[in-house]
Amino acid sequence: MTILIQNIGELVVVPRGPIGGRSMHTVNTITKAAIVVQDGRITWFGQACDLQYPDECHIIDARGGCVIPGLIDCHTHSVFAGTREGEFVKRLEGKSYAQIAEEGGGIRVSVEAMRSASCETLIELTLPRLRRMLQGGVTTVEIKSGYGLTVDDELKMLQAVSQLKALKPIELVGTYLAAHTTPREFVDQPEAYLDLILDDAVLSRVREEKLAEFCDVFCERTAFSIEQSRRVLETAKRYGLRPKLHADQITQIGASVLAGEVGAISADHLETIHDEGIAAMARAGSVAVLLPACSFFLGVDQAPARRMLEADLPVAIATDFNPGSSMIESLPLTLGIACTQMKMTPTEVLVAATANAAAAIDRQDSVGAIEVGMQADLLILDVPNHHRWMYELGRPSVRLVLKKGKIVVGEA
Amino acid sequence: MTILIQNIGELVVVPRGPIGGRSMHTVNTITKAAIVVQDGRITWFGQACDLQYPDECHIIDARGGCVIPGLIDCHTHSVFAGTREGEFVKRLEGKSYAQIAEEGGGIRVSVEAMRSASCETLIELTLPRLRRMLQGGVTTVEIKSGYGLTVDDELKMLQAVSQLKALKPIELVGTYLAAHTTPREFVDQPEAYLDLILDDAVLSRVREEKLAEFCDVFCERTAFSIEQSRRVLETAKRYGLRPKLHADQITQIGASVLAGEVGAISADHLETIHDEGIAAMARAGSVAVLLPACSFFLGVDQAPARRMLEADLPVAIATDFNPGSSMIESLPLTLGIACTQMKMTPTEVLVAATANAAAAIDRQDSVGAIEVGMQADLLILDVPNHHRWMYELGRPSVRLVLKKGKIVVGEA
Repeated sequence: MTILIQNIGELVVVPRGPIGGRSMHTVNTITKAAIVVQDGRITWFGQACDLQYPDECHIIDARGGCVIPGLIDCHTHSVFAGTREGEFVKRLEGKSYAQIAEEGGGIRVSVEAMRSASCETLIELTLPRLRRMLQGGVTTVEIKSGYGLTVDDELKMLQAVSQLKALKPIELVGTYLAAHTTPREFVDQPEAYLDLILDDAVLSRVREEKLAEFCDVFCERTAFSIEQSRRVLETAKRYGLRPKLHADQITQIGASVLAGEVGAISADHLETIHDEGIAAMARAGSVAVLLPACSFFLGVDQAPARRMLEADLPVAIATDFNPGSSMIESLPLTLGIACTQMKMTPTEVLVAATANAAAAIDRQDSVGAIEVGMQADLLILDVPNHHRWMYELGRPSVRLVLKKGKIVVGEA
Repeated sequence: MTILIQNIGELVVVPRGPIGGRSMHTVNTITKAAIVVQDGRITWFGQACDLQYPDECHIIDARGGCVIPGLIDCHTHSVFAGTREGEFVKRLEGKSYAQIAEEGGGIRVSVEAMRSASCETLIELTLPRLRRMLQGGVTTVEIKSGYGLTVDDELKMLQAVSQLKALKPIELVGTYLAAHTTPREFVDQPEAYLDLILDDAVLSRVREEKLAEFCDVFCERTAFSIEQSRRVLETAKRYGLRPKLHADQITQIGASVLAGEVGAISADHLETIHDEGIAAMARAGSVAVLLPACSFFLGVDQAPARRMLEADLPVAIATDFNPGSSMIESLPLTLGIACTQMKMTPTEVLVAATANAAAAIDRQDSVGAIEVGMQADLLILDVPNHHRWMYELGRPSVRLVLKKGKIVVGEA
């Protein structure tokens, strides 16, 4: 099956990631462009005038719209049960996280809801979220465990992700984040909790059932220390799970330096990153995954994106979609927040949510770029160029979504 | 025609505006509620168990959703031609407004596009914007002139608003903002420009053709001075146009004090308001219209909303939708920005975008409230309560829109 997309107003030729921050500012664009897709992959793209029409093909008219790679949300907690709007309101009223936790709020609420939910319930709750993400142009989503905080409940979350893969055209990637926080039952003995979740039988099962590709840890004063985090990541690495970190979010305890030391594929958050952390990540080739919707949702300072871009780190952007600190499931809105609050340009955020987001989840060879041979995950926007796309902040602009060359949103 | 909305999960009983800031925090809600609408007005509401079923009626099942008054966007520049995404990108790259203006950007671009557009073109450009606003739950919109900057072009803008009234179920309110800035042709003689736009023939025509109900002026160091602004507003008042001001946006030159002195129905922006301005507005009963999407879009500090709320000013929120400083047409997103960036609660922003927005455009006796006798402009949301509505930031939640008792968005 050959598909020809013609009448493209602007084709943004995003190259394969990772792309260093200084190179994210400029990307080639082709006006009056066309793309040919065969068997789910891009086989040709260029100026329409250079096109040799395929013999038989299904033609999609982009009607002058902009075409970009499908968006990739490389850091989410999309599998969750229960909502926490009461806590959202209390925070706006000026209550601290400690006060909210004392009054019964915080992650504990999500953990209790998760433990009492069946895998079927989780799937039912998550499906409409993924459907809306897809409609917003997101064709690949990473999802973390981390609200179960028992071996069984963590695996249940990852099994929900596995089963969702079969149900939706959206591509899913699982991350084992059992070290999200120490559960109540182990409050004074975090090492005992780590013994459980790093047990050989557990990690072997994660590997054998392909429940996750990455292992993540919340490395923070209120969560796991540098040494505990190192233990988690080094142990998981031996089972083929590549390291990721929640790093430098609230306090600076050296998490981004650890990211470099363990060769993390990404370090995420980075609101308080310092020059040492930037240097360590640069040496290791880690992707800096920024989460502007989280800072926005909490009303706190954004990560210093421009410093990381200037240091040439490959920067990615994700929603951090979760019921506590970022109940924002829209990646396009998150990119708008990155533009206006982090002073990133539309081109930079586009690269951040495609090529570099792909690199943050080891998918750079299949998605996130407009290159011959790449999977044809493509969006047709109803705007003539990608600057307009970000400028019209908050307006849904996705007219058509192709996943592996198949139309999954919109009509040709 | 009698309509019964039943199975309402939460009915937010917003009282008639204006509502002082300290009273905006708490609003009555009724769970398991119902509303009866007759001839486009609310005739009964309360707990479903107290309902006496009307003999014949059309039943709408709210399916446990939250019901709130239709939203009111009381400060927009929705009639415009051309876009300015290039300027958006330059600003993100660190260029100043002065540099952008030198390179041919700024309001001049919108003025030139406006002058070369016909009234028909303006209508064509504006209709889809209004349609999307309505789908987002906005049932009443104020629209300002201000991109024509000649008598003919200013009147053309207001005529477009008049003609749009006939085309859309959305209710429109026109404001004469010829004093938006001094046009190029009058760069060193702003008084001569004011002579033109305040001419008796012009203002008489605005009154007779009912082109506007309000007169607005951009009172700012770079636009019109206090004395020029006073002249504009006092003159227009004699033609029945009630005063509004763009006040205290960039610098503090006393615009909010002037708002109080001229008895402005509202003063808008107020990013740099001081205690004197707050006191003057309180004495005059002016509504403080805050525009969080504008500060967000520009990436600058927000107006001190909590200070105004604590001083008991009636606070309203609007999008400021315009192609230069706030290309955000979504009022729900704007309310989410107000929550997270101004620390306003979901209840406060709801009152700000209904009862108090109505008061800012003199519509408090017909819209913006759940009261017997009020126009049945109602939204059914697909969330169980209004806290959840704001918490799920950026997700479109409007399932059904009623304007004057008629379904204009969604299906019963």
